[in-house]
Order: sequence, then C-alpha cells, then structure tokens
Amino acid sequence: MGRQWMKLIVQKYGGTSVGNPERIKNVAARVKRSYEEGAQVVVIVSAMSGVTDGLIKLARDVHPSPPERELDVLLATGEQTTIALTAMALHGLGIQAVSLTGAQAGIVTDGVHTKAKISNVTPKRVHELLDAGKVVIVAGFQGVDPAGSITTLGRGGSDLTAIALAAALKADLCEIYTDVDGVYTADPRIVKDARKLDDVSYDEMLELASLGAKVMQSRSVEFAKKFKVVFSVRSSMNDNPGTIVKKETRKMEDVVIRGVSVDKNQAKITLSHVPDKPGVAARIFKKIADSQINVDMIVQNVSAEGHTDLTFTIPKDDLEKARKSIQSLAADIGANTFASTEGIAKLSVVGIGMRSHTGVAADLFEALAAEKINIQMISTSEIKISVIIDTAQADRAMNVVHGKFGLGK
Amino acid sequence: MGRQWMKLIVQKYGGTSVGNPERIKNVAARVKRSYEEGAQVVVIVSAMSGVTDGLIKLARDVHPSPPERELDVLLATGEQTTIALTAMALHGLGIQAVSLTGAQAGIVTDGVHTKAKISNVTPKRVHELLDAGKVVIVAGFQGVDPAGSITTLGRGGSDLTAIALAAALKADLCEIYTDVDGVYTADPRIVKDARKLDDVSYDEMLELASLGAKVMQSRSVEFAKKFKVVFSVRSSMNDNPGTIVKKETRKMEDVVIRGVSVDKNQAKITLSHVPDKPGVAARIFKKIADSQINVDMIVQNVSAEGHTDLTFTIPKDDLEKARKSIQSLAADIGANTFASTEGIAKLSVVGIGMRSHTGVAADLFEALAAEKINIQMISTSEIKISVIIDTAQADRAMNVVHGKFGLGK
Repeated sequence: MGRQWMKLIVQKYGGTSVGNPERIKNVAARVKRSYEEGAQVVVIVSAMSGVTDGLIKLARDVHPSPPERELDVLLATGEQTTIALTAMALHGLGIQAVSLTGAQAGIVTDGVHTKAKISNVTPKRVHELLDAGKVVIVAGFQGVDPAGSITTLGRGGSDLTAIALAAALKADLCEIYTDVDGVYTADPRIVKDARKLDDVSYDEMLELASLGAKVMQSRSVEFAKKFKVVFSVRSSMNDNPGTIVKKETRKMEDVVIRGVSVDKNQAKITLSHVPDKPGVAARIFKKIADSQINVDMIVQNVSAEGHTDLTFTIPKDDLEKARKSIQSLAADIGANTFASTEGIAKLSVVGIGMRSHTGVAADLFEALAAEKINIQMISTSEIKISVIIDTAQADRAMNVVHGKFGLGK
Repeated sequence: MGRQWMKLIVQKYGGTSVGNPERIKNVAARVKRSYEEGAQVVVIVSAMSGVTDGLIKLARDVHPSPPERELDVLLATGEQTTIALTAMALHGLGIQAVSLTGAQAGIVTDGVHTKAKISNVTPKRVHELLDAGKVVIVAGFQGVDPAGSITTLGRGGSDLTAIALAAALKADLCEIYTDVDGVYTADPRIVKDARKLDDVSYDEMLELASLGAKVMQSRSVEFAKKFKVVFSVRSSMNDNPGTIVKKETRKMEDVVIRGVSVDKNQAKITLSHVPDKPGVAARIFKKIADSQINVDMIVQNVSAEGHTDLTFTIPKDDLEKARKSIQSLAADIGANTFASTEGIAKLSVVGIGMRSHTGVAADLFEALAAEKINIQMISTSEIKISVIIDTAQADRAMNVVHGKFGLGK
C-alpha cells in the first residue's frame, strides 16, 4: 500500500446499532470516517437485534431443548449475516471491506458450546487484510473449538471478541459502541443529575458491571484488565466521547466514590438454626453450585449456642430452583427455619478511592438512616460497599446516596 | 461402535423439502428410517425455500449490486441454518446427528464467488463422524476457497455437493430428493400420459437437463457421469422409487426415444447478408460470450454470392443484452438485416437409442408436418434432435411427438 497508518482501531457495534439496513449504513459511514482519518479499522458486529431470539424460537420449533452444539451452528448465522451486510454497506461507500467469521478471524475457544471461553486468538488473516489496506469486519460472539466446531461465547460475547482482538492485534484504541453515552455515576433514568464519567478503572467497571449497570458483562472487563486493553464505551448515535476504561490512575484515587448502582434482580434466602460446625456451609453452597446458580452475597452471623443464621442472595429467576435444591438438605442438617424473600434490591457504592479514605460505610449508613431506609444485609469488598434494602425504597435510596457523595453535576 | 454398516447413503433434500420446521421433522424421520435400516447416512440440505431470496433482498437493501464475496458469506447462512435445524430434529428423534458447513465437510472450490467450481473434496471429518456412528448433515451449495473464504456453487449447487460427496465417500447410493417423483418422458402437466422413467443414462439426463426438464442442472449430472456416481431422483413426499440415473445399459439402447422436452425460455436472433469469410462468426460469438450470454443453437445456411445467413438462439432474458452487444458489430461487418424474435420454443427428443436407429428425424418432422406445425430451425446431436417452433404450438407439438414415439403409459 505504501500508505502510512496512523493507528489501529477496533470498533464494536451491538445489535441495536446494526438493527436494520439503514443503521448498518450508518455504522458503515462511521467506520469510513475512521478509515479516512488514517486508521486501520477492525469492526466487530453482533447479530441484528431480534435475530438471535428469532433463531432460538426456530430451534425450539424443531426441538424443545436443542442440542447446544447445533444451537451454536444456528446462532452463528446471526453475526455472519451482519458481517456480510456491513462489508457490503462499506463497499457501497467505496471502502474495501472484507468480512470474517469468528473462526476465520482466529478466535479459538474451548469446546463448551453456548458459553465457550476464548483460549487463543491468532489473527493472521486479520493482519494480512489490514496490511492490504482493507477494513476487516469480524463476527462477534463466535469462535471455533480445537476440533473445528463452531462455538458461541454466551452473553456479552461480542464485547469479548472486540477486547480479545484488540489485545491480540495490539490495537491503539478499542471502542465499544452501544446505545448509551457511556458509564454514569448512577442510572440517569432514576437519578436526574447523574453524570457521565470521563474515565473509570477496570476494577470500578467490574464492580459496576456485576452490580446491575448493564453496560457490559464482567468477563469482557476482566479480559481487558488482564491484557491491559484500554477501551471506551460510547454511543453509536452521536459523537460524544464516552467513558474510557483503563488502569487506575492517581487522579482516580482522589475520588472516593465513582458511582452508585442498584440491582433489583435479586432474591434472598435465609437458613436459621444452622449447626455451626465445619463443612456445613460447604455442603449448602455445593448444592447450589451444582444447580448452576450464581450466589452473590453471603452473610453469616456470629454463632449462639452452637448454631448460626446463614443468608445469601441469588438472581431472582433462580429462586425456585435454589429453594428446591436445598430444601431437603436444610431438613437434613436440622436448620429449622427456611425463608426466602423477593422484593429486595442491592444498592452499591463503588470507587477505588475507598481504599485510602475512611468513613465511607458510615456516610452510606447515615444517609440511608436519615431517610428511614432499613438495611437488611451488608457486604463489602476493597472498593465497594453493598447493602440489601427493600425494592420499594431503592430509587429513593439511590438518589439520596448519589447526593450524599457529591456525585451530581 | 462394533456396529455392522450395511451401506453408505448420501441423501439430498431441496429447499421445499425443508421449507418449514414441520417439513424438517419429516426429513429427519425419513433419515432416521435409513439409519435404522443399518445405513451410514450423509444428508445434504439446501436453504429453506424463500430464505435465499430474502437474503438477496436484504443485501440489495444495503448495496444495489452487492460484492460477490460478501454475498457468498451472506447466502451461506441459509444452508447453515438448515443443517443446524435438521441435526436438532434428528436429536429430537433420538439420533446422534452432527452438522457441518461446506468448509467443515471439506468441499474445496476455486475462488469464483457465487458460481464456484468444486476443485477437491476431502471429507476427513465426515468419515470420522460416520465411523463414530453419527448421521452427518452437510450444508449444500457452499464450499471454501484455498484462501479460506466462503464460496457458493451457484444454481443447482446443493445437488452438486451431494454428487461430489457421494463420489468422494464412495457412497453405495445417492438419493436426490425433490418435489417431483422422478424423470418423465415429458412434462406431465402438459402431456397427460407422460410416464415416469425407471432409469435413464447420464447422457440422456444431460440432454433433458439442458432442454428445460428442470429436475436437475447439467453440471451435477456431468459431475456424476465423470465420477461414475449412480444416483436416483425421487420425491421427499412419498416412497415411490424415483428414477435411477446411471451409465447406459444395453437395455436402454433398445429404446429409441427416452423423452420429449420443451424449452419456452428461448429467443432467436438472425443476421442476414453476413460476409462468408473466415473469422466473421468468431467475431460475432466472441462479442456474445464477452457479455456472459450462453448461446444455444447456431444455424448457418449455405453461402450464396459470398454471403450467408446466421441464426442463433439465446435465453429470452438475455435478448436485450445480446442485441446491444452485437448491433454495432452487425453494421461493421455489413450484415444488412438484423432481426430478433421472441415467442419461440425449442422442442427436443432425446434417447441414446437414436445412435443405432435410423429415421428418427424423419418421424419427428412427419409428426409435426401432419399437425401443420412449422419448423424454423433444426439442430441435432448424437442423442437428440431439437427444432425451433412457435411457442403457441409447443404444447400440442409435445403431445403429438410423445404419441408418435410411443412414450405413453
């Protein structure tokens, strides 16, 4: 080519951004701009919104619980459709674009169908195509296992493809385009003066991701942290700069609390009169784990007369399954009461500054107490404090806490 | 496995046969039956009917004339969807089925997108899966070029995949399932007493295919002939035995005429007063070929006073293109008239027995003359005679000729 490339950019566009031919053309126009500014561009796209659900429905029409290997073969057609259309749209704008499936782009995974893990990225063809001056369009969410079967990466898989490719290609920039402007101090639909963050550390983003801020799945952020991929989360509908996610800086540490989040998708189970001896908790949580349920918070009170209370939270959808899974065990170990509650919410404050600042918990509890909001459970990590409260009070609590820590505009 | 396999069968099901989830389940039931009768089964499927057209429409929504490499990536999702669903349906019936894309099944082609030619079949994975007791479902119509890009084989591509795989696997049987019962002596919608043939030779099938009997594309028959693949053409809606296509036998030669066909999709162009000297015809047909138009019949009359008349037929859809392509050339070489006509039909009689029987042409002309049907052009090959007649008389001509050669039930 002889062309002097300024930098290598990886851009990821989600299902809404490529939801119809018109939007795909908009994405193409945006990609063209980056290309014409002198960048080598790799574009990762998801299936058009609604397509994956349609394919799952089709699968269920032939099999009530489709075999997962074949479901992956089917679902992979969703992104394959988008890569072809996106490449065509770029050709329509005079840009030489070439589409690649996950397998063609060198995304190698383990063989766990419908939720495969990326084990290796060998983007030889991507490099060749970039060197030949092409824009490369890669199917997100999919890869190939060592046996050559198509796999999919599960929820948030396209983000993961983007981060993994950015790492493998040593990209200068990785942009995750979505339908929000970036990461906010709180959900702007609930907290009116919520503020978009210019930057956020991996750890903060991880906590926010796992706490119900639905911008990205934790696994993609973890991957980015591990491979030191700096990325931005921004909107495909405007030119706002978005939020940069990166290694923590000195400046970030000066801010005590970065954001507040609420997760209303939780349920709580309490076992009381649990014998306080080694191995009991292990048996309980082994049972839960065997049912493929993710336990979130676990709280155990101090023992009294050889017995203790054990409370834990799980996703609301798994409540029935969890109840069934441990009912007999509870009787077995002599836990004489067993209660489960919905209608709870988890409110969390997150910030790496917390490490070097004291009194955060006190400030949080004080703010809630002043509003007569009862705290049912408390759990802390190095950079976050979470409390379980009543769902009905969650929005009010979020606003109060957001104000208390001065996060507003 | 320790299981004793009776034989290896390749079955191909077209778009109508897999047109919806219910039909896919029917196909699965049919495959299951063959498997349970002790056969190793490889199934080739097309895209569900209507899907390919839908994808082409989608492509046109983003690009008026989509780049062919990307069109192949897009179209390949059609068959990929069907293989996954078919494998799922088989699982639903308790049969271990595994789906493979064209690339995974080892269908290697040249790099001519949208009409690639199969250059090599290396069905290593198919063998492995069959040996492990699986039913293997392969996407028809698609392959991969040496550079690793997805290609498609063009019209009739799924038949070609089936024949090529049957050859590579040395299958005992290759069954092409379609929506007709087999090959007929004439189109049963036009000729009431048309009879299904039990068997037909490759050459006869080739002539019939190229003459408008739309059961199969010639290229698949040519491939089968070259690699000596015996196959049957039969209906996926019933258990009738269909028509077997194979090398000619002694018995076949005893039948003078195997079938009558009519192609109404032709147009005729006549150039008169063409200089009768070397190179003129070459210039004309080079021009036509450069426009990617297939010329069918060519007739040149004897020369008078250094000039001759040249008439040829082409597909009706290409008439305008052909006219444009040679208009200036006609003036250039001094051909002083130039006429093109639609409304013609080509009627052909086909049979390998013709080689050893005389008088077939005379019988044909006599039959048409008795009905006052005028013959505009005549062309013969070793095993067929074709005449161009008026479209309006085509159906009547077909019935008359069918009767004349005693092809009825």
